[in-house]
Order: sequence, then structure tokens, then C-alpha cells
Amino acid sequence: MASSLISRQLVLSLQKNLWRSAPGCRYVSKAAPQTQQEWEYDGPSMKTSVPGPRSQELTKQLGEIQNVGAVNFFCNYEESRGNYLVDVDGNRMLDMYTQISSIPIGYNHPALLKLMANPNHLSTLVNRPALGILPPENFPDKLTESLLSVAPSGMTRVQNMACGSCSNENAYKAMFIWYRNKERGVSGPSDEDLSSCMINQSPGCPDLSIMSFMGGFHGRTLGVLATTHSKAIHKLDIPSFDWPIAPFPRLQYPLEEFTRENQQEEERCLEETEDLIVKWRQKGKPVAGIVIEPIQAEGGDNHASANFFRSLRNIARKHGCAFHVDEVQTGGGTTGKFWAHEHWGMDDPADIVSFSKKMLTGGYYHKTDLQADKAYRIFNTWMGDPSKTLLLGEVLNVIRTERLLEETARSGKALLNGLYDLQTRYPSILSRARGQGTFCAIDIRDDETRNKVLLKARDKGALMGGCGDKSIRFRPALVAKEYHIQILLNVLNDVLAQIK
Amino acid sequence: MASSLISRQLVLSLQKNLWRSAPGCRYVSKAAPQTQQEWEYDGPSMKTSVPGPRSQELTKQLGEIQNVGAVNFFCNYEESRGNYLVDVDGNRMLDMYTQISSIPIGYNHPALLKLMANPNHLSTLVNRPALGILPPENFPDKLTESLLSVAPSGMTRVQNMACGSCSNENAYKAMFIWYRNKERGVSGPSDEDLSSCMINQSPGCPDLSIMSFMGGFHGRTLGVLATTHSKAIHKLDIPSFDWPIAPFPRLQYPLEEFTRENQQEEERCLEETEDLIVKWRQKGKPVAGIVIEPIQAEGGDNHASANFFRSLRNIARKHGCAFHVDEVQTGGGTTGKFWAHEHWGMDDPADIVSFSKKMLTGGYYHKTDLQADKAYRIFNTWMGDPSKTLLLGEVLNVIRTERLLEETARSGKALLNGLYDLQTRYPSILSRARGQGTFCAIDIRDDETRNKVLLKARDKGALMGGCGDKSIRFRPALVAKEYHIQILLNVLNDVLAQIK
Repeated sequence: MASSLISRQLVLSLQKNLWRSAPGCRYVSKAAPQTQQEWEYDGPSMKTSVPGPRSQELTKQLGEIQNVGAVNFFCNYEESRGNYLVDVDGNRMLDMYTQISSIPIGYNHPALLKLMANPNHLSTLVNRPALGILPPENFPDKLTESLLSVAPSGMTRVQNMACGSCSNENAYKAMFIWYRNKERGVSGPSDEDLSSCMINQSPGCPDLSIMSFMGGFHGRTLGVLATTHSKAIHKLDIPSFDWPIAPFPRLQYPLEEFTRENQQEEERCLEETEDLIVKWRQKGKPVAGIVIEPIQAEGGDNHASANFFRSLRNIARKHGCAFHVDEVQTGGGTTGKFWAHEHWGMDDPADIVSFSKKMLTGGYYHKTDLQADKAYRIFNTWMGDPSKTLLLGEVLNVIRTERLLEETARSGKALLNGLYDLQTRYPSILSRARGQGTFCAIDIRDDETRNKVLLKARDKGALMGGCGDKSIRFRPALVAKEYHIQILLNVLNDVLAQIK
Repeated sequence: MASSLISRQLVLSLQKNLWRSAPGCRYVSKAAPQTQQEWEYDGPSMKTSVPGPRSQELTKQLGEIQNVGAVNFFCNYEESRGNYLVDVDGNRMLDMYTQISSIPIGYNHPALLKLMANPNHLSTLVNRPALGILPPENFPDKLTESLLSVAPSGMTRVQNMACGSCSNENAYKAMFIWYRNKERGVSGPSDEDLSSCMINQSPGCPDLSIMSFMGGFHGRTLGVLATTHSKAIHKLDIPSFDWPIAPFPRLQYPLEEFTRENQQEEERCLEETEDLIVKWRQKGKPVAGIVIEPIQAEGGDNHASANFFRSLRNIARKHGCAFHVDEVQTGGGTTGKFWAHEHWGMDDPADIVSFSKKMLTGGYYHKTDLQADKAYRIFNTWMGDPSKTLLLGEVLNVIRTERLLEETARSGKALLNGLYDLQTRYPSILSRARGQGTFCAIDIRDDETRNKVLLKARDKGALMGGCGDKSIRFRPALVAKEYHIQILLNVLNDVLAQIK
């Protein structure tokens, strides 16, 4: 009781300090904030071009320790708030990229600060367990409250992991194990299986494959990298597997204006997918599983229709392949539904759905028969981190109480309409505006112009990301409201007017 | 100022509550504890056999959500303290396995509780950045204070990662990139490199290999799993790479009594290693890197001499292979030196040293020329987690101020001598006692007896782990003192007396 009182005092005092120390903050008060608008900043505020002098100095310092080629700038996370990321030079930017789409409800959300300030959770922060062997008492409850409360249709089981790559790696392993057990029937592994696997040889390490799609991205460790085909720099010089790669539909946008052409393109891809499954079986490398993103993200925000995914799900079933939907980037509410695959309207959308990023913990949901038959087959030391599951539970509470899925659908509509409008206004620069929820993108006429737009917009206080050859992707947090979208569109308009 | 006062109050109140709520705790006082002995429990205390009824109930509950075949029991981490792990049935066990060797300074160390209760760190807990693109302001300093302050000899660069598997996966990628750049010389990748890698084919995805050792363990994702050869269950049914596997010396213990035999065995292994490098080059799958643990852990606590590792380092250099020392389990002080490879006495022990577990964050140190030449080649969304680097910094402070390396050397001596003694007393059960620091192991006459010893010792309040075919491994935290070792040896003696 005493400690919970102190906890509340702490949170209040802390929040008070945060507001006081934040010049330009809309609402400076001793009372607790009631709505997001009250505690967030009222707009971007730029003091230098980005990266500013302090960021440049720190980049040089970090460059003595590691490769800094990808560093954009250094951040002041303490001062960042909601949709606004503050950098070390005092620039405050509207963040529509959110740490590569991994910040669910904005920076320093009061509910998360309060949660982490609660001394009851200190033990979770300092004693990271080996979850697979010695879980904490509240672990089943925490899984039920957090991950299982948003389980995809038809799935009641979840395997927690630490990050997106290891979630997908382990999902592939689950599919391989499932596939071989299916082949074996009731008999267990043979002595030859057990001895040959120790030296990486078949039949113990079988020539099975995972089918992926050109343009897909599923991570960068060696297994999942064999299914990533977005950019050469990710794959160059790394040994890989001879696994089949199907074409992903290249659709014309807006989708509803090109239904016939798009349907033809999707049929072509489905046909080739099925051909490849047969071909690889004949090659002696049968396809154990098919992995696909509901929207190809890193590869350029490529969409396909609900019908395409339903057909693919059927092809997988027909050929005895597991169907793995990778929702690492699309999951967590950003498309206006909690999972992007919900837009397909299926009761049985997948055998495996993997997640990470906005979910704060990695892992994958799976159908019951995709659970590995024995212990230690899907395993590692930490198997995730209870401190992340704790945060996720609170994030889900906020999503519910603040109705952030509806908010995201609304903001997404404003964003996509705004992009259509800009596209009409700047037809020589923009094309192919597309999106679902706030998970939107637009193409710029070439790579060079795309990068110019990104940098100029950043200097005006709006952060976005690139994807594919020449696309810009928008990945706001779920707390982005229509007025944030309006600020973004204004910045974009200013930048495009200069470029034109 | 106000908030730091509240923080101190919070910590004091919290610690007070912890002590008060801990029956059997040696020292119940309102004053801050001065030494470990004052705040830790005074011994194991068992109320039920393990797993007790509450653990069994929770295991059943969790079994509805995921595979629980590896779950030992459920823990009460709030009540656990120092070397003692408390379970949900109120059993208090001396923990000589420490979450698969991943708890560096015991449970709920006051210094870590204090750190995490400090509201200045709340932002680090709730805003996980994409470290590769948007690091926090203090990141270079935090790396310097924590990871770089214990950098292996000859290494000034470190790449942070999230866990052991992804640290090794990325270390392999760094070696592949380094090797291909060396082959290319000044010219960049060809158009053919860039196009072929997108479809997993050579020359872009080259037929390079990593050499590993039979009995080694380097993780379970597909790339590192190809170098793991400890147990069939880890590898069965997962596709792999045709990479060379060298024999690891099978030495006789105590090492100093079999120097000539052991030297011959090591020479045989070194010769075969070199033959394999040549053979794989001729096969068109040259060895880009050699990976090895200083002591094979999962594979059975297999040791080799400093001379063996020095020779191997030279073989790697002679054949142009990178030399990767995997210190995921051996690192962080457990062998009595911070890194196990320090026992080899070399100025230039390795090109890459990977770590995780006791370091709380994953990653790898590397020589300057092993840094990837371009951005985004060694990359993922999170690239580790600043909240873990923060904890590591404090762990290193505690290691220094409490002189835990010396402590571990001392406790390790007591442990190994105790094992020698037990081995003499129970020659029909025990053999091959071995160790460095507290990183010790002993063989039991067969697998069945080994498991019996582990379970009986657990019911008497001492936790250890199995490894290899029939070994028991001891992995106490660095805060294990000689009197803890004595408690362990007493339990073991009791158990062995019953089995005999």
C-alpha cells in the first residue's frame, strides 16, 4: 500500500517534470492529462537542419565504435512525446516512421511511464528468466491478457520469441518439423535421421524448402534471409538455400480502378506459385511452408487482394504446405484492423502468424498441429522477455480504451485521400498512392527525387521512411490523429511545390 | 532533485518490503544492507518436492498455450534473492544453473533494483529505439562505459545485438562479407553478384562455409544451427548447409595428469582441421571463418588447452579464415577471468568474440577489418536494447566493486576441489571433474543416474544443469561464495550417498 502510494507520487512528479521541461508543450499543468492533445506538442519545431551539429558530433564519436552509415541522427527520447520525436539539437519532428514502424502508441505514453514506475514490476526488469524452463508465476496469465487477447482467428496457441527474425526462423523450424512428422506418420525418427542430422546431412537435415515471394522481407539471419528478396544489399555475399521464389503481383493503383487487370496479374502469380511447388517437389526439395506478408513492406508496400490471399491459402492446403503469414510490420493495428489478414475475411487465415515490432515482443501464433512435438526443438535461453509482454499488455489496454483502431482507420482515410490529392496536384512527381489504415505509401518519380523529398521533409519537421526502389512509406503510431496527418500533408505539399 | 529523492525513498521502501516479506532472510533491518551475506537467505528451504502442486497447476495452464515439455517449475522472482531461486510453492533453492548461465550477479541485486527504480531511466524502458538509425544521445557513452570497458584484447569495436543466436548469425555474416571483399580486392560487387543474390544463387550468394566443431553449440536459428553439433534434437528435420565439422579434442582429466596423451589428441584434431579447410576449398566451399567455444558448454563441458587454441588461431590466419570465439556462455567472468579466452594469454586472440547471456545484451566485438563495409548489411530493427546495456553497465560496476572475478576464482577452486573429493569418494558414479573458475562439470556414470542426481539434488534445494551425454554442469552466478559452494557440495554428497 505504501509502495503503491509512492508509485503514484512518482508518476505524478515525473509527468509534472516532463511537462515543465518541455517548452512548446501545449498544456502545462499540475493535473493529470486527460487526452493526448493535452500532453503532446502542438507541432514540429526546427532549430537546425538535420542532422544538426550535436548529432554530427555524436555520429563521429559512435563511428569510432561501429558502422554508422545508417544513423540518421541522435535522439532525445526523454523529451519526445506522442507523435513527436525530439533530436539532440532540439529539433522536434512529427514522426511518421516510428523507429521502423515499431512504436505502437507514441513516445513516453503516460500509461507506459506509469506502468514502468510501479515498483511491483522492478523484479521483472532485473531478473530476466529462461522462460522455456523457469517461467514466472504470472506468465500464463500475462500471455492470456496480452498476446492471446488478440490472437488471430482459429489460433489459441502462441510461442513467444525476442525479435522478428528469430520469430520467423522458429516459425520455419516449426513448419519443417510439422512437415517431416507428417511424412513419418506414427514412426519416430530413424537412427539414420538422428546420426545424419548431427553432420548436417539428409535424411536428418532434409532438403525441405520454404517458398517466398520476390520483393518479400522476412528478416536477415541466414534462414529467413533465404526468403528475403527486397534489396541486394541485404543478401549479397551471404550463403543461401535453393528455395523457390514466386512472383508477387505487381498491381495497378487505385486497386478498385484496375480490378480486371489486377485479377489477371494475380492469377498469373498464383499459377506460377503452384507450378513452383510442383517443380520443387520434383527436384526433391518439397515446400514445407509458404511465407508471405499481407502487404510487402520493405519491398515497396506492394498490395494484393483478399482474393489472392484466399486462393494462396487454398493452394497451400491443396499441396500440404503450411501457410505462414508474416505480420511483423503489418500487425498491431496499423492497417485499421489488429492484423492485416483480418481484411481477408477468413475464419482460418493461416497456420502460423508471426509478429514483432509494435507488439514489442516477438513470437508467432500457430494452429495446434504446428506445435513442435517435443521439448527443446523450439527453444533458446530467453524465449522473449517478460518485461516486453508487460508493456504489450498495457499497450493493448490503451488501444482499447483510446479506441485506436478506429482512430487509425480514420487517420488512414485522411492520409490516403491526402495522398490522392497530392498525386493529382503533382502528377509528374507522384504516383501509385496506396494504403490500408495508416499503412500507406506513394511512389516518387525516381530514387534521387525520393531521397530529396525525404530529406527536405525532415528539415521541415516530418519523418517518413523509404521502401522499394522509389517509394515513401508512412508508418505513424496508432495515436496519429487526423490533425497530425494534416500537418504531414502540409509539409509534403510545401516540399513538392519546391521540387516541382 | 525532487524526483531523485523520491527514487531513493522508493528503493529504500522497496528493499525494506522485500526483506520484511522474506521469511528466513538472515538480516531484517531498516538500514541498507552492506554486504551480500546480510541481505541473502541463509540456505535452501524446501516445502514440497519439485515441481510442487502450484507449479504443476501452472504447467497445466501454460500447456494450453504452448509446449511445456521443458518447463522445470514456476518461479517467484520477487522473492528470489542472490544465489537463491524461490519457486511458487515456497521452495527456496541454491541456484547453480542461473537461468542457463544468464544471471550475472544473482537475483534482485540491490544495485540493479536501485538502477531500475530511478525515474531518469523510465524513458529508456518505454521508448525502445531502432538503434541502427536513431540512437539515443548517451549511446556512445553507454557503449564505452559498458561493453567497451571489457573489450577483449586488440578489439575496439563492438556490434550490439539482441541475443546469442542473432549475435552469432551476424558475426557469420560479417565474416562472409569480409571474406568476399578480400577476394574482390578494390572492385565492388559485379552486376551478376547483385542480380544472382536476389534469387539465392551464386556468385551473389556464394558457396562459402563456416567451420565448426563436433560437440559445439552456437545457437538454433538456421545459420548458426548449421554449426551446432551437440544434440540431435536441436538439428533434426531442419535443412542445413554442407559445412565442414572438425573433431574437438576429447581430453582426459585432470588435464595436468595427461599432458602427453592430451597433446597427441589435440594434434590429431588440429591436423584434421587443417585437412578439412583444404578439402572444403577444393570442393568450392571455402571456409570464411572458424567458430569455436573456449569450453564447449552445451556439448558437455569439453576443454582444450591454451596451446590448442593458439595453434588454431594460427591455422585460421595461415588459411585466410576469420577466427570467431563464441563466448556466449563462457563470457562475463564465470571462468575467473572476464573472458575465457584470456586464459590463452594472447594479445590477438580472435577476429570476432560474440557474447550474450550474462552480458544481458547480445553482440560481438571485432577487429576493425571485420566491420561490414556498408550500412544495412549488419542490421535489424532494434539492434539490441538500451535498457539491457544500462543494466550491463551496473553489473560491471558491481563486478568491480565487489571484486567478483577474484571471488569466482576462489569459489571455483573450492568447487573443483570439492568435486575431486567427491570423485574420490564415489568412484563408481563420478568421473572427469573439470572446470575453470566456477564453470565446472563432472560426469555421472550414465544418463539415467545423471538425471536422478539432478532431480534428487533439486528436491534437497540445489539446482544444477545437465550437458552432453551424461555430465552435470555448474553455472553459479558471480556472487557465489565459498560457503555457497559448501552448501552445494553437502547436498551433492547426500544425494550420492543415497545412490551409491
